Amino acid sequence: MGNDPTFPGTGGRIEDLVARALAGERRSIGRLATLVENGGRAAERVLTLLYPKSGHAHVIGITGPPGAGKSTLTNALIGAYRASGDRVAVVAIDPSSERTGGATLGDRIRMTDRYADDGVWVRSMANRGQPGGVAAATGDMVALFDALGYDPILVESVGAGQGEIAIRGLVQTNLVVQAPGAGDHIQALKAGLLETADAHVVNKDDLPGAGRLARDLLSSLDLAWPPGSGETGHVAAVPAVIRVSAQTGSGIDDLMRFLRTRNVVVDNDAGMAVRRARARADITARVTAGYLAGLDGILSQIDDRLVDEVASRRIAPGEAARQVLATDQTRLDNIDT
Amino acid sequence: MGNDPTFPGTGGRIEDLVARALAGERRSIGRLATLVENGGRAAERVLTLLYPKSGHAHVIGITGPPGAGKSTLTNALIGAYRASGDRVAVVAIDPSSERTGGATLGDRIRMTDRYADDGVWVRSMANRGQPGGVAAATGDMVALFDALGYDPILVESVGAGQGEIAIRGLVQTNLVVQAPGAGDHIQALKAGLLETADAHVVNKDDLPGAGRLARDLLSSLDLAWPPGSGETGHVAAVPAVIRVSAQTGSGIDDLMRFLRTRNVVVDNDAGMAVRRARARADITARVTAGYLAGLDGILSQIDDRLVDEVASRRIAPGEAARQVLATDQTRLDNIDT
Repeated sequence: MGNDPTFPGTGGRIEDLVARALAGERRSIGRLATLVENGGRAAERVLTLLYPKSGHAHVIGITGPPGAGKSTLTNALIGAYRASGDRVAVVAIDPSSERTGGATLGDRIRMTDRYADDGVWVRSMANRGQPGGVAAATGDMVALFDALGYDPILVESVGAGQGEIAIRGLVQTNLVVQAPGAGDHIQALKAGLLETADAHVVNKDDLPGAGRLARDLLSSLDLAWPPGSGETGHVAAVPAVIRVSAQTGSGIDDLMRFLRTRNVVVDNDAGMAVRRARARADITARVTAGYLAGLDGILSQIDDRLVDEVASRRIAPGEAARQVLATDQTRLDNIDT
Repeated sequence: MGNDPTFPGTGGRIEDLVARALAGERRSIGRLATLVENGGRAAERVLTLLYPKSGHAHVIGITGPPGAGKSTLTNALIGAYRASGDRVAVVAIDPSSERTGGATLGDRIRMTDRYADDGVWVRSMANRGQPGGVAAATGDMVALFDALGYDPILVESVGAGQGEIAIRGLVQTNLVVQAPGAGDHIQALKAGLLETADAHVVNKDDLPGAGRLARDLLSSLDLAWPPGSGETGHVAAVPAVIRVSAQTGSGIDDLMRFLRTRNVVVDNDAGMAVRRARARADITARVTAGYLAGLDGILSQIDDRLVDEVASRRIAPGEAARQVLATDQTRLDNIDT
């Protein structure tokens, strides 16, 4: 199937879809995004064709607790980038969308007027438990839009958990968004988000408590980055703290100035070392997930007959385990070689 | 190698060692125990020969926090069983023995006069990270002594952690030992030991606080097993609370009476269902561990060349991952078939 140029349900050869998407045809871009989201060999074929064209976009993470106003901020950033003529893609990771059946982040963004704009793409990724997890699936989607010339790409995710830390490797710049009274910013600090942020965005600047939140953040950062810690050149820069109101637009200019300074492709040895480390981590995560995906099939080889043999002590459990593992190898020998 | 009747370092054919061990030759028993402890194919061969002879011993777990007096209690039980002419094996699991280099549980037991007794075997198992973990390795050691006619087999382990819960599936009767002022019994309850105990042994009964500890345990058990909860026959019996002083010997008779009532081989349908469930869990743990043991080898196939290809975006990370997984399959195809 890997060498078969046609895939069922693609509505045409993947090469043709890619060519039309590169020419800007919106319908083909949507089809490619769906293929990438669904994973499997078709997704891999899309990425094989397009990954070499990626690596140019400024990929910006937008994370933070629910209620911090991430979607509103995303919309404000879309507006600001569009005003400069940039084509913007948003990849929204919403692990809750499957559970609640409610509106996803992407839906909420789509509700706005930006959706009609040809220069904006919004894709929601539910965590479907793909091999490699949401980080791999999101990385593929980011690479797709990157290759198609979208820059920046905003990666928005919900909650203050492992998702944020997983996507840290995907983005050049990570914004951690908080708002007074929304969520517990101490919890965000505990979850390790303090360390993952390139900038802390204090949203809803017009609400009481915003000043206090910003001061608390600055104190925490002072503790984590003592004076002089950035001077060696090896230590990450102290994160910025930027106050905005995504609703009214105040402070968005400051945030954009910060983001423009970050949009520098580092093409020196240090940059290559970072890219190598990320590539190794990415491949490792995918190989691990792909390997672990095989475990269920092997465990299903533990049939009632074998269990009975052990339960009645005719064979030892260690020998039974080796038989099962050998069955797996035989199965591998019989497929796909 | 599996069909080769001789193994290096065994000092003879395994079949001969097994025959001499079954005849009671102490030196051969020690060699077999070492083979089982070291794991691998020689251990598997030993178990293949002896596992069918196992399944008769009363296997008794002795767990609890450090300082509760588990080793002293083990010695008291050895004495009581020896007084009845029973041959006793002790398998001591001491995850700390590697780290500290200090005396292991087994050493402390060996220091006593019991070691000279031909009716007593004591083996210490360090957790060496065998495939299947300490539970599988301990299960193999228990099966060895069981097959060689030792009954009971005392499985003693340190700490209030996962080890205890893992060995729960190995033992018919689990004693959770506590002492006033030693460790925090509330912590033991939190760690889930309340549910794993068939009897709570309150040791050091002569110390102040023993009565309070016993009362606290009884209250906790009342909450966990409300009146009437044992009447359906499907719910586990309420654990006993037995006060002893392993040092002076007081209460050991009560504990022995309790243990004698537990030493019943259940040979009905329910007993077979329990044995099947344990066999399935045991095989599953070993297959999982054996499968996971292959992951490191596969990850080592992620070489610098491949990382560079991805870092410079010549190939996509998903494709690189598939190449690595395919390499593994090729490797499997080339060995041992």
